[in-house]
Amino acid sequence: MLKVGIIGGTGYTGVELLRWLAHHPQVQIQAVTSRAEAGTPVANLFPNLRGHLDLVFTDPAQENLTACDIVFFATPNGTAMQSAPELLAAGVKVIDLAADFRIKAVDVWEHWYGMKHTCPELLEESVYGLPEINRAQIAKARLVANPGCYPTAVILGFLPLLEAHLIDDQYLIADAKSGVSGAGRKASVPMLMGEVGESFKAYNVSGHRHWPEICQILNGFSKPPVDLTFVPHLVPMIRGIEATLYANLERDISLAEIHTLFIQRYQSEPFVDILPPQSHPETRNVRGVNLCQIAVHHPQQGKRVVVLSVIDNLVKGAAGQAIQNMNIMSGLPETTGLTGVALLP
Amino acid sequence: MLKVGIIGGTGYTGVELLRWLAHHPQVQIQAVTSRAEAGTPVANLFPNLRGHLDLVFTDPAQENLTACDIVFFATPNGTAMQSAPELLAAGVKVIDLAADFRIKAVDVWEHWYGMKHTCPELLEESVYGLPEINRAQIAKARLVANPGCYPTAVILGFLPLLEAHLIDDQYLIADAKSGVSGAGRKASVPMLMGEVGESFKAYNVSGHRHWPEICQILNGFSKPPVDLTFVPHLVPMIRGIEATLYANLERDISLAEIHTLFIQRYQSEPFVDILPPQSHPETRNVRGVNLCQIAVHHPQQGKRVVVLSVIDNLVKGAAGQAIQNMNIMSGLPETTGLTGVALLP
Amino acid sequence: MLKVGIIGGTGYTGVELLRWLAHHPQVQIQAVTSRAEAGTPVANLFPNLRGHLDLVFTDPAQENLTACDIVFFATPNGTAMQSAPELLAAGVKVIDLAADFRIKAVDVWEHWYGMKHTCPELLEESVYGLPEINRAQIAKARLVANPGCYPTAVILGFLPLLEAHLIDDQYLIADAKSGVSGAGRKASVPMLMGEVGESFKAYNVSGHRHWPEICQILNGFSKPPVDLTFVPHLVPMIRGIEATLYANLERDISLAEIHTLFIQRYQSEPFVDILPPQSHPETRNVRGVNLCQIAVHHPQQGKRVVVLSVIDNLVKGAAGQAIQNMNIMSGLPETTGLTGVALLP
Amino acid sequence: MLKVGIIGGTGYTGVELLRWLAHHPQVQIQAVTSRAEAGTPVANLFPNLRGHLDLVFTDPAQENLTACDIVFFATPNGTAMQSAPELLAAGVKVIDLAADFRIKAVDVWEHWYGMKHTCPELLEESVYGLPEINRAQIAKARLVANPGCYPTAVILGFLPLLEAHLIDDQYLIADAKSGVSGAGRKASVPMLMGEVGESFKAYNVSGHRHWPEICQILNGFSKPPVDLTFVPHLVPMIRGIEATLYANLERDISLAEIHTLFIQRYQSEPFVDILPPQSHPETRNVRGVNLCQIAVHHPQQGKRVVVLSVIDNLVKGAAGQAIQNMNIMSGLPETTGLTGVALLP
Repeated sequence: MLKVGIIGGTGYTGVELLRWLAHHPQVQIQAVTSRAEAGTPVANLFPNLRGHLDLVFTDPAQENLTACDIVFFATPNGTAMQSAPELLAAGVKVIDLAADFRIKAVDVWEHWYGMKHTCPELLEESVYGLPEINRAQIAKARLVANPGCYPTAVILGFLPLLEAHLIDDQYLIADAKSGVSGAGRKASVPMLMGEVGESFKAYNVSGHRHWPEICQILNGFSKPPVDLTFVPHLVPMIRGIEATLYANLERDISLAEIHTLFIQRYQSEPFVDILPPQSHPETRNVRGVNLCQIAVHHPQQGKRVVVLSVIDNLVKGAAGQAIQNMNIMSGLPETTGLTGVALLP
Repeated sequence: MLKVGIIGGTGYTGVELLRWLAHHPQVQIQAVTSRAEAGTPVANLFPNLRGHLDLVFTDPAQENLTACDIVFFATPNGTAMQSAPELLAAGVKVIDLAADFRIKAVDVWEHWYGMKHTCPELLEESVYGLPEINRAQIAKARLVANPGCYPTAVILGFLPLLEAHLIDDQYLIADAKSGVSGAGRKASVPMLMGEVGESFKAYNVSGHRHWPEICQILNGFSKPPVDLTFVPHLVPMIRGIEATLYANLERDISLAEIHTLFIQRYQSEPFVDILPPQSHPETRNVRGVNLCQIAVHHPQQGKRVVVLSVIDNLVKGAAGQAIQNMNIMSGLPETTGLTGVALLP
Repeated sequence: MLKVGIIGGTGYTGVELLRWLAHHPQVQIQAVTSRAEAGTPVANLFPNLRGHLDLVFTDPAQENLTACDIVFFATPNGTAMQSAPELLAAGVKVIDLAADFRIKAVDVWEHWYGMKHTCPELLEESVYGLPEINRAQIAKARLVANPGCYPTAVILGFLPLLEAHLIDDQYLIADAKSGVSGAGRKASVPMLMGEVGESFKAYNVSGHRHWPEICQILNGFSKPPVDLTFVPHLVPMIRGIEATLYANLERDISLAEIHTLFIQRYQSEPFVDILPPQSHPETRNVRGVNLCQIAVHHPQQGKRVVVLSVIDNLVKGAAGQAIQNMNIMSGLPETTGLTGVALLP
Repeated sequence: MLKVGIIGGTGYTGVELLRWLAHHPQVQIQAVTSRAEAGTPVANLFPNLRGHLDLVFTDPAQENLTACDIVFFATPNGTAMQSAPELLAAGVKVIDLAADFRIKAVDVWEHWYGMKHTCPELLEESVYGLPEINRAQIAKARLVANPGCYPTAVILGFLPLLEAHLIDDQYLIADAKSGVSGAGRKASVPMLMGEVGESFKAYNVSGHRHWPEICQILNGFSKPPVDLTFVPHLVPMIRGIEATLYANLERDISLAEIHTLFIQRYQSEPFVDILPPQSHPETRNVRGVNLCQIAVHHPQQGKRVVVLSVIDNLVKGAAGQAIQNMNIMSGLPETTGLTGVALLP
């Protein structure tokens, strides 16, 4: 049994980690910390966990996490980097669900996140936790940076096309849409239901922190660096991300061939599902499960390919992918504790 | 392994049955029928089932269901009564998720459902499938009438109070609210999102089919018959029922004592969860799971008790309860294949 | 032209007042104050007002509101009582959309609102601004307490029955449901869309501040005081309140007679609309307009009457009713600036 | 007073026309037809119109519409072309809110709409009713083809850039998102709230009928024809369209200059509102009003411009624009009867 700790268990990625880990057959949750809720039974804050989990939130300062095999940080950006060095030094593996270790270039990170990085020496070692790209390194990693939700959906959609050099990497468009749980569970006016219900908008068009993260990964498959425009939008629903990706084809190719390319690229991936060509994946197809569904289109047989990619932002876009990484890091079968059927309707 | 058939698998109770049965450790699904979708892979209609289920919808007329151990009817009212006699005669057990066998008095049934009953001789034998009341009879039953969604939430909330003769049975109010999936998955103007989104209303105030069903069961715990006013409402969400129940206390009793009564009544029930007194159960607490959460209140220490009861109308209010009944009828542990944590948020 | 000031214009009742007053033919808005947004153009915060309003939020401390004819307080509870005495002394009329002047008994107010009242001497003079009851007093008032949203829907629904002594005032149930805008526009976790979307719950069952307010008014039509149970619920939508009211009839009376009673009571009321008997008013019928729609039911011809009442909580439940009061206080036709058709769908 | 007829008044564009026309100071509604609802008072079907409109739906076959000055067709595609010739011959002006007269090339129309056009001789005469492009021709027109909802939002966003030859017309992307009311008010499974609530998807990616319509208009400002990829998406809300438009700039230009271009292009347009650069228009900003809000972005100062454009699909995208056209065709001030503040929240 893996001894697992969760730092910052009161947010949406925290409760989603708990939803999965409560029944993971190889996990024993040692501690769930929260400064604000220390002393509160977890199931009081999250009544869906009544009967599934007997834990009480503890103060991270009081908690001896070095007894854990692995620790998840489900905390705001800038928190994991405070404690990760000590945990690693004690032999604990670390998975950060926030952004502290996602960007390799410390100046880029500090620019986009607006703070000083406290352990830049760990950036090179940290592994970007997208198993479909980095499975082997994840297996050996001590420190995994769990990908952002948008990057997961966007990268998995562009990947086969870039790897096959099928598209013009100087003209990539990612128009992405997210449910509101992506903004987390903290008091704010802009995320009130009165503000975001029954309305739709783009946001951060001039620059979103997931843009450099996506570019960094896609650049690994492109030379020169990609020219990507990424526009996120807010959808009046709770869970789900849909990314509509546009690229120019570099050569004549049929939709069937493009589809085959995706099928082949992901044929052994347990958590990527390629739909038939011209399908329209709905976010509800993956609600509550660790899965990315993708479909390809070739409108008007023109020069453009359109890829549709959907995930549950809290699962394949956060907690589920983190557990997938944990399984890989721990030598467990990758799907352990991650099965289930999406909630439809 | 139980050989199971599902008649009418294209509705919301159908896909919910499939979501649970696809991974039930003791079930092998033999057939899922649909006249309209015969020949279509189930996972084409419901992409959440891709990779979980390999079945194709078949025409019920072509299907030999007598090879099943148990057959679920997830069909409109009036369908199960056409085929149940033949299946029962062939030794197949039947669970009807519609209303054909819920009402004992054939004239009452025919009045509320506006059609002639084709096998009234089965009404006496049929068992009302609310395990918290009828577990022993369900265990021996050939034919189970799975309760309506509203009745499940309302009956479980009133039951301890009526059994203990604590309330005036001549003044019961059940103000119930349901998500839209309760209306099923059939083309209709009134259930368009453009009609029911961002709005709230009562409906069928002058008489809803679940009223005689609730009364029939509550009358088993009351003499004379109860005087119940039942008002259903439509909530702009997909899953969930909340029932707010009002009754006059017949004697002085503290909230703590009322709470204890509920705790004791349901202490061995795996699918009823009594929250602390003065809690406010939210429908999301039980989204996607087979559970009824209940809390009791005693406002202003007056003569009135208020009971709050929530279920997922498609699970404890339909498919989950049907599988609970199947487990009981088949001698399996009642919770087999029915575990899981509710999807929150 | 009336010179009008609005204190606290950044909340939902504030922007709704501005939506109506921007085009009110007899109003000139002098000032809209906000401590936090002083200096910000109103239309920057609320882009629906672009082109309709040229005002900038000002600091209330800097603003000379005594030049106004009338001042609206769209502020949290406890704010209006700080400034109202000074304004009244300067000859300015005051309408408080919060609760400071709604309750006559200062001890009751202080108990429910958890603070000391700073001008209890004004409580007797203040008029409860429900025109359907207090039109004459409102016309002469200097200080109007605009009713709460729930009280408006509940009182208008019970009123004809109580006035006619048709119902048992010792057994009144008001099961009320509100959209989320009723909770206002302030940062909070419980009102995030991630928390309240796709879910339904009762809240404050053991005691809500609108309960003593409703009782105080209904007691004016009942002797002894009414015994009312009031349970509010939260609906995953933005605007709208629906109240389902239950009472026992004291004598035999047909539904047609009850309906006629309501028609007669409200025949000259411009903002109360009695639907045909057995109708089901939807909150969307009144979305964005100053109207209460009511329908009566008599289920199973029993001893109970059910009244359904819907309003837009921000209009007839707040800003619209405040302007209705302003019109009356100013000798304008009551409907001035308050016409319009509800937004459906 | 204009005598106005509405053919097909039971859909969402029908009720929206009625909402505006009921209080239009220069309009007298002569008839609202509906085959299915003939004899039903309009306000029974749409209770928001109670007290605002006394009309009864009539059978179009019985109705003498030649007495009207102007007739709106709020009917499915293929209906207006049946009756328009006769009305025009009788001197009645016609505005079709459906697609019958939008496409000039009859073969293109017949390909996309899958039926034979019955009066192709009218296609040349018909005027595409986008006043921001065709105001002068609309003023003289007998027959106006009211634009589609997506085309309105997309064309207004691209227009200034194409007119100024600022962008590469061979690489236009329009990623558009619509609320569910765009699909109309007809019984269908895919538009049930149970299907489209709490989910997001692209649809018709391989080809949507609004694609040739948009291209036809944009081609008027481009040589050779534009290469546009248009992808529509469905948002779980009722009203609103947001279009995110991507194009490559042909020359170096600052965001401020692009913004100025938009300001100048639309400075005299009453129903187009250019927000400050880098704004994020929300669909709720224009809910219920005849307005297109637009903002421009220049992410990472690269070669790409991003335009955000929002409308209410039922107002500027349908009924409001139709009334705008009626005003122009009738020599009325263009804004007559079309003022109002959007409903926010």
